[in-house]
This record gives sequence, C-alpha cells and structure tokens, in this order.
Amino acid sequence: MALLGVGLMGGSLGMAAKRKRLVGEIVGYGPDPAALKRAVRRRAIDRPATSAAEAVREADLVVLATPVGLFEPLVKEIASSLKPGALLTDVGSVKGALVGRVEALLPPHVVYLSAHPLAGREQSGIEAASPGLFDGCRCLLTPGVLARPDALTRLTRFWERLGATVTTLDPHEHDRYLALVSHLPHLVAYALVECAMDASREAPALLGFSAGGFRDFTRIAASSPEMWRDICLENRAEILKALERYRSTLERYRRLIESGDGASLEEAFRSARRVKTGLPS
Amino acid sequence: MALLGVGLMGGSLGMAAKRKRLVGEIVGYGPDPAALKRAVRRRAIDRPATSAAEAVREADLVVLATPVGLFEPLVKEIASSLKPGALLTDVGSVKGALVGRVEALLPPHVVYLSAHPLAGREQSGIEAASPGLFDGCRCLLTPGVLARPDALTRLTRFWERLGATVTTLDPHEHDRYLALVSHLPHLVAYALVECAMDASREAPALLGFSAGGFRDFTRIAASSPEMWRDICLENRAEILKALERYRSTLERYRRLIESGDGASLEEAFRSARRVKTGLPS
Repeated sequence: MALLGVGLMGGSLGMAAKRKRLVGEIVGYGPDPAALKRAVRRRAIDRPATSAAEAVREADLVVLATPVGLFEPLVKEIASSLKPGALLTDVGSVKGALVGRVEALLPPHVVYLSAHPLAGREQSGIEAASPGLFDGCRCLLTPGVLARPDALTRLTRFWERLGATVTTLDPHEHDRYLALVSHLPHLVAYALVECAMDASREAPALLGFSAGGFRDFTRIAASSPEMWRDICLENRAEILKALERYRSTLERYRRLIESGDGASLEEAFRSARRVKTGLPS
Repeated sequence: MALLGVGLMGGSLGMAAKRKRLVGEIVGYGPDPAALKRAVRRRAIDRPATSAAEAVREADLVVLATPVGLFEPLVKEIASSLKPGALLTDVGSVKGALVGRVEALLPPHVVYLSAHPLAGREQSGIEAASPGLFDGCRCLLTPGVLARPDALTRLTRFWERLGATVTTLDPHEHDRYLALVSHLPHLVAYALVECAMDASREAPALLGFSAGGFRDFTRIAASSPEMWRDICLENRAEILKALERYRSTLERYRRLIESGDGASLEEAFRSARRVKTGLPS
C-alpha cells in the first residue's frame, strides 16, 4: 500500500491496516521529512519514499490522504508510475466533480474509487493518528462513472475489516449532504470562535466566561485549516447553498428576538431538540 | 433553604447543598407535582410546598431556579412572605436590568444577590440533576445597587463550598459577555440543527451522514427550549449585537468562498484555531 499524506487520516489508516494485517509493505510519502520519520516511528508506514511516484511504484492500493486540493497535482505526478491493476482511492471530504477529474487523469489500467470515512478529531497530523480511528465509523464510497464492481467489492471489504460500515452513494449527492452536516457546521464554528476572539480584544476577560457550548465550538474550530480551506474551495457551490439556508434561518431567529416573539422562539428551539432522537447512535 | 424550581439547576443545587450539609431543611416548589415528588425521591428537597409563598416562609436562603422570565412574577408572589434577613438569589443566565427590577420588588429587610453558575448539560429536568454539577465550575455573582457586602461574603462561601470558583462582575457586563460565549453559541446551534432538519425532509438519508461536528451541535440544541426562549427575550439587546457581529463574520466567509480566496480562508481558520490554547482549562 502507498500512503500519499501521513497526517491524521493517512497515519491512522496505515496503523490500522498494519495492525489488522490487511496489506503488505506500506510506503509513505509527504512533503515533510520529519513527519515521514514520525510515521515510521509510529508504525504508520514501513518506509518513506523520496517522491510520490516512487511511493506508488509497487503498490496494489494507493491512498490519497492529503487536503483535497492536492489530489489532481498528485495524481498527475503518479499517473505514469501506477502499477497495472492498482486501485487508487482517497479519504477526502469532497467528491462531486473532483471524482471525474481524477478519473480523467488516470491510465485505463488503474481504477479509482473514492472513499470518505466519517471519522476525524480536532487534532491533526501524525501525532494525532490512532489505529482505532475508524473503528465503528461509517465509510462512504462514491464511485465515479469509470469505477468497476470488483473495485467496489475490494474496497468495501477493506473498510469493513478496518471496522467501518460501508455505504455507497453518488459523488454529487455526497457533497450536497456533507455540505449541510459537516462543512456548514465547521464554518459556523470557525465564525463563532472568530467573533468571540475579536470581542475579547476589547474585553480580555470574555473567554474566561465560556462554558460548555462555546468549548465544543473551539474544539470543532481547531481542525486543520488547510483541509477546510480546500473543502470550501472544492465544494463551493453546495456550501454556498447551505450557507444561504443557514443565513435565512438565523435571520428568522433575529426577527423573532427583535420582535419579542417568545412563543415562536420556543417552538423553533423545541423542534431543533427533536433531531437528536432521530440520529443514528 | 427554599428552591423555587426543581429542574436540572434547582435539583442539582438541592442535592449538592444537602450532601455537603450547607443548609437545613430544603423546601421546594414548582408547578408540576410529579416533578416535586421526583425531587423528594432524588433527595433534592426535603418536602414540597403547595405554593411559592409557603415554600419561602421559613427560609434563610431562597433560590430562584426557573427560566428567567418567571423571576419577576415569582418575586411578586413571595415578597411579603420572605423572612427578615433572608437572602434571595437565583441561578439564571441573564442579569443586566433584571437584577434591578427584582431588587425593586423586594421589601427592605431582604437582600437579593444574583448568581450564575457556569454549569449545565444538554438534558434538563430533575432526572438530569446531579449533586456534582457544580464541582469545579465557575460561578458569577452579579450584585445590584442594593446588594450588601455581607450577602456577598455569605453567597461566595456557599458557592465555594459547593466546589465553584466565584467571580464578581457587573450585571450588564455579565450579559454582554455571556451573549457572545453562551447565548450566541446556542442560537447558532439551534439554527444549524433546524437547517439540517429542514433539508432532511427532502433527503431523509442526510442525518445519517452526520459525523462529530454536527453531533456536538445537536447536543447543544437539546437544551431546555423555555430557558433559551427567556434568555433571548431578556438579553435581547446584547444578543442582537452579538448576532450582528456573527452575521458579518459569516458574510465575510461567504464572500471568500464565493471568490475562491483560499489564502484568506486558511488564515481565518488558522486564527480561530488559536483561541483554544487561550482558554482556561
């Protein structure tokens, strides 16, 4: 297996695959030599490669585990070095049109099947990686037009053995859903933390008064800035739609507060409460 | 001690004060007889009263533990039954002008000193109460113009023995701070959950794809609707200011996404990340 990117996701995947003996040698590549060394020490990879192309040369399974903005340049770099029959996959948070663009860069003897394990944590980098990260998580496979059924079977089995429950869905549908339940929540958290930080410049005591709610937001807002930058750029259309929906909900709340409409506020809060019981555990 | 309101906060306060032997008999009152019975069973109160006035008659310490919108009607109801020298306090999330309005309703032989323990959880009601709720929390005391130093000493000692760290601040300053680090975060969470719920009507699979971030929001949005309705109405001015600040931050993000300004997005996300290290643990 080749891991391109040895941060939280790539590192955890290497550690988990090694521990469960799902793959042979794991070769890793990333731009930071120190991170590659730590990845070897943490047993996420067996050895570092000096380039992405070198890393993939012998690999039956190649995983893109960088921010999604690097997928295309990386795939261009490795395309001619990929082994015939190799399966290329990723662990990115955006699919949509990107899936087709990656497929278009590949030689016909390589199959691409994109995956998105719904696992993560606030920390990033190889130090935060853990072999248990995917245990019990949901993993979404989003086949493009060129994906083949045998690749689907193979990757489903791979993720299931890592402890994930696998669901297949359309790449564009993936982006529409994730914009609402993942991308928008992160933006909302970043904006909230920025507001409080700005205000704390005038009133330094402010952050000391934060209790439960706010702390959850700071945790969410501690995720990798590069990763979220790329998600915002790549899933722009769906995120803008989600933001517009959000803006108008918040504007409705504002009007209810301004006009002192307690009954409608209570009703809004009461119905938001109900969603919790509808979530899978 | 008299507890007016035996939900999460009142119930926890009764259980904690009893366990630490800080008070004598605890008499409770609330509109729901079943909740009062459960409060006796959970040892949050020693006996229920049939009215608020009856509950406070013998009490040296009277605690308002209802949604803040009920403070004034309740105080009107009990004012003439309060014992000379009694200390009236509360555990509400809004102070500001409300403190002076409550003071104005009291006879001169009663002192009011408002308190806000920064403790809470998503569940509400007596079933969610716990004697450890205030252990290690911060408790804000917000004296009004009529508060006396001896009351401050007495209530500080009370909360410290419950395990809290006590800070004193101006009621209006309290509301300005809490609007940003508590009230706004809850509104933002309610709005986000409402958006996802609305969208899930057209796409029922949607909520199944929620991962870490979104779950934190559903937890925050599960707080008591009556309590948050009253907070929004009572701290309207500061919440509207906080919402406006938030709206403009989110609008800036929207423009950065629309124009594809990755560098500025990354910088915004990176600085929001820094706040975490600045928070008290």
